[in-house]
Amino acid sequence: MIVLRSRKRLAEWLSRRGRKTAGLVPTMGDLHAGHLALIRRSLRENRATIVSIFVNPRQFDRKKDYKLYHRDLPRDLRLLRREGVDAAFVPGERDMVPEGYRTRVEVEGLSRGLCGKFRPGHFAGVAAVVLKLLNLARPDRAYFGMKDYQQFRIVERMVRDLDLGVEIVPCPTERDRDGLALSSRNRRLSPEERSRAAGIFPALQSVAHLIKSEKHTGTRGARLSSIFRAELRPGKEDRIEYVELVHPETLAPVTTARPPALLAAAVWVGRTRLIDNLMILS
Amino acid sequence: MIVLRSRKRLAEWLSRRGRKTAGLVPTMGDLHAGHLALIRRSLRENRATIVSIFVNPRQFDRKKDYKLYHRDLPRDLRLLRREGVDAAFVPGERDMVPEGYRTRVEVEGLSRGLCGKFRPGHFAGVAAVVLKLLNLARPDRAYFGMKDYQQFRIVERMVRDLDLGVEIVPCPTERDRDGLALSSRNRRLSPEERSRAAGIFPALQSVAHLIKSEKHTGTRGARLSSIFRAELRPGKEDRIEYVELVHPETLAPVTTARPPALLAAAVWVGRTRLIDNLMILS
Repeated sequence: MIVLRSRKRLAEWLSRRGRKTAGLVPTMGDLHAGHLALIRRSLRENRATIVSIFVNPRQFDRKKDYKLYHRDLPRDLRLLRREGVDAAFVPGERDMVPEGYRTRVEVEGLSRGLCGKFRPGHFAGVAAVVLKLLNLARPDRAYFGMKDYQQFRIVERMVRDLDLGVEIVPCPTERDRDGLALSSRNRRLSPEERSRAAGIFPALQSVAHLIKSEKHTGTRGARLSSIFRAELRPGKEDRIEYVELVHPETLAPVTTARPPALLAAAVWVGRTRLIDNLMILS
Repeated sequence: MIVLRSRKRLAEWLSRRGRKTAGLVPTMGDLHAGHLALIRRSLRENRATIVSIFVNPRQFDRKKDYKLYHRDLPRDLRLLRREGVDAAFVPGERDMVPEGYRTRVEVEGLSRGLCGKFRPGHFAGVAAVVLKLLNLARPDRAYFGMKDYQQFRIVERMVRDLDLGVEIVPCPTERDRDGLALSSRNRRLSPEERSRAAGIFPALQSVAHLIKSEKHTGTRGARLSSIFRAELRPGKEDRIEYVELVHPETLAPVTTARPPALLAAAVWVGRTRLIDNLMILS
């Protein structure tokens, strides 16, 4: 595996390789089995796989979160080598956010609800850096996890709108044995928080079941929240940021549970913000 | 010359051609000698030249202007054929602004002043469509006229920020014998308006001369406007929208005439809005 430390090195490597199908897996490092699932899929579907590791300052709505973000590059690179990845692209911040950077990319509408409401600027930061990575790496396919469902839809829309000619491949959420969706943030949970966090997905499942059993009866926001709260039974230090039923493409809120619909939630477990979602297909 | 009527046709043509250096000249049609100068430069500098003709609805801040925009495709294609252009890309509106389009591209700061202040949404519309054209045509170089100086700087910044790997080539403003900068809008001028419009560039030259002769004495907005007005002597039906001295890269207003600086103006001559500018280099 080659480690490419700048845009220039990446460009040189790409021009040496010539035109071969390539998959890109954009990450912020601190790799876990969720990332590895994306990487393995890319390795199966492409002749070459590039994994980018870049902790994007612009997608953190809180500066403190950016500083606290766990970084362990040697471990990440070891994992990537073991998987048989072709290239790790590890640019510096000045390389990705050059002096005088001014371009803002906003996927209107899709960025407004769900996490967008609570993390101002987050998705504009994601969109801009993903766009840049796609332009630099020029992959045929790029892989995104469904835990970050809103991110996936935003990137997919942007790629279509701007004609980037990349296939955006959504991949199922990987979960631990207790059902908790894998996330770099999980490492911040205390054992007690961890066991409460593991309740999020079962609570979503119960809510989905309840909603389906009362089809078309209307499931407005307040009622949805109260069902979810009753199922989750959050701790005193926890807080449900949102739980919403939305159309899986437009992400607009839906009030009847006519499938398909996406049930998505963000929950603060102690000081850690976790998200998860569930697709209601039938 | 091949006429490509959709993104699909363009993609097919590009894949048949393989990798050759290509120049792109984006236009909204109604071609004049200003466009032809860009096209000739592209023909000299590249093995193939693509000229796009697309009247971009999103860059019109007034719907009426969009409807009134002069279109004469047969004439435009004749001109392009005569120049020896390789391909004319003439997409339809649905092709360029597909159902559900949501992506907004904003080059912050650079879009705020000058024309941006008076044409809300204009430069976001320009940026999005230029980005799309660059992604579709994947040229090595793209050519822009300096009459639309702010547009050139915005596109240049976007291309650098997003790593599009295209060289943005600025080309000098072409002028008629009377000094009037060439523009598709000039055709709307009555003979009387035309002779008043021809005074814009000489007025800018006089102002530049005056400013230079009083170096470092401070040239604030109000004073600049009054000098320009005195030089231009606009008609009763005319209106100076702005005249500004800005830094040629950041486009931020400068109050001393330390070169380099850009002197730019927008003037309504009757019902026609005209822009022009002048670089003060020394």
